[in-house]
Amino acid sequence: MTIEHLSSNKSFGGWHKRYSHPSEVLNCNMQFAIYLPPQASEGQAVPVVYWLSGLTCTDENFMQKAGAHRIAAELGIAIVAPDTSPRGDQVANDDGYDLGQGAGFYVNATEAPWNRHYRMYDYVLTELPALIENLFPVSNKRSLAGHSMGGHGALVLALRNPDRYQSVSAFSPISRPTDCPWGEKAFSAYLGDDRSHWEAYDASLLMSGATAFVPALVDQGSADDFLAEQLKPEALVSAAKESGYPLHLNMRDGYDHSYYFIASFIEDHLRFHAAHLV
Amino acid sequence: MTIEHLSSNKSFGGWHKRYSHPSEVLNCNMQFAIYLPPQASEGQAVPVVYWLSGLTCTDENFMQKAGAHRIAAELGIAIVAPDTSPRGDQVANDDGYDLGQGAGFYVNATEAPWNRHYRMYDYVLTELPALIENLFPVSNKRSLAGHSMGGHGALVLALRNPDRYQSVSAFSPISRPTDCPWGEKAFSAYLGDDRSHWEAYDASLLMSGATAFVPALVDQGSADDFLAEQLKPEALVSAAKESGYPLHLNMRDGYDHSYYFIASFIEDHLRFHAAHLV
Repeated sequence: MTIEHLSSNKSFGGWHKRYSHPSEVLNCNMQFAIYLPPQASEGQAVPVVYWLSGLTCTDENFMQKAGAHRIAAELGIAIVAPDTSPRGDQVANDDGYDLGQGAGFYVNATEAPWNRHYRMYDYVLTELPALIENLFPVSNKRSLAGHSMGGHGALVLALRNPDRYQSVSAFSPISRPTDCPWGEKAFSAYLGDDRSHWEAYDASLLMSGATAFVPALVDQGSADDFLAEQLKPEALVSAAKESGYPLHLNMRDGYDHSYYFIASFIEDHLRFHAAHLV
Repeated sequence: MTIEHLSSNKSFGGWHKRYSHPSEVLNCNMQFAIYLPPQASEGQAVPVVYWLSGLTCTDENFMQKAGAHRIAAELGIAIVAPDTSPRGDQVANDDGYDLGQGAGFYVNATEAPWNRHYRMYDYVLTELPALIENLFPVSNKRSLAGHSMGGHGALVLALRNPDRYQSVSAFSPISRPTDCPWGEKAFSAYLGDDRSHWEAYDASLLMSGATAFVPALVDQGSADDFLAEQLKPEALVSAAKESGYPLHLNMRDGYDHSYYFIASFIEDHLRFHAAHLV
């Protein structure tokens, strides 16, 4: 495994670094970013929050816009931000911003042409953590967080793998992808027309039947343009009631779908994760 | 004067807003961003920090990447970020990133074709504050801050107008523009070949002869690729010694020229300004 170092920036006493590596799971080269807090340079094995971004994003958006390094440096947490899909000229794509490159939806595609590369579920669940835990001074304590499509991904990964993660949080997640336009478009393409195959990637369906729990925090802005049609957090609330899931959901008055919303509440999310990553 | 509202995002309990307006000084339409802290919605006239960005930036870079809203919300300070030059198809431009649109250098150009639009010094000094103080619930207490080319602009404006500003700060400023490639290229174009006309825009020259003082804070990263050839903070230190100027300059080990550096220390800068804006 060759890994290429792309750049380093000192940030809040720690380091923001970007790398490129060949992914066996995704069958292409992938970039990711990691924030290593100062404690990682002092011989501590720090826990890791994996941040899953939303549609159109890369590894860069969260690192540049969320203002998370300050709190990660204080708490001694590393943050890893993968890209949102496989990438490259040889990777299938679509003209829409909500399908193809930049829109992997954190699933393992079963349908051609997507099934050659689009296996973001396995990439985030196993290949990327193995790489991170091999290369950097981190522990095997992991949490998940994400935004929008990435909030969906974080919730699904945690709900299906409660033994792998200490906690999960999401901003503005696509809570019911089997019943919204973004989800139906992506799942039809990646998973095919048989909707029963979609259920393994629907956070609300998974949560309603859950028997093993990962503490979950969700923040949703009330002025989010995508709230009613695409995000549907009420489905998560209903599901949590059914199964007794430890979900805490905050509706935030006046906030929208942007990184200004994420920045406003990322401190709460990282402190929530830190409490479970000890 | 018509002003067009472009967008609003709630952020840390306050509002990030973008506007477009026709500028008489610049003879074109201009965009700017303002962060209004929560106190501005509660009937307080809040003071304003004007942030001047560096080469290639617009009003957006600082607002998205600096993580400043959190601290401005706590301190009750508005932040205004203008664009870095006049803009538009009718505005003179250059293929280089360091001349023309995105590179106004906060001067009043005297040479054709630049002198039709490039009057960023007057725009930041008078037209923009008049607009801001007319439209928003702000006081006439003003401070200046900026990065790189914008650090140069902030220092020059404060040094030449000590009665207008309470404090000034800069990250990685172009400290000696009459003696570095960026400055010599821009000043030759905008101000002509007579170097005596450049001196009114050189922070180190102005500081060495200053008799009225604005408290000044500068942060500079030691790993900044532009440090030795373009930035030359040692010229500022020498100038401050000559005139007894109240300059505090921090060299920051390992930090570079990026917004990760700015984000790491913006809290110090805003607290410095807040102490002088009371």
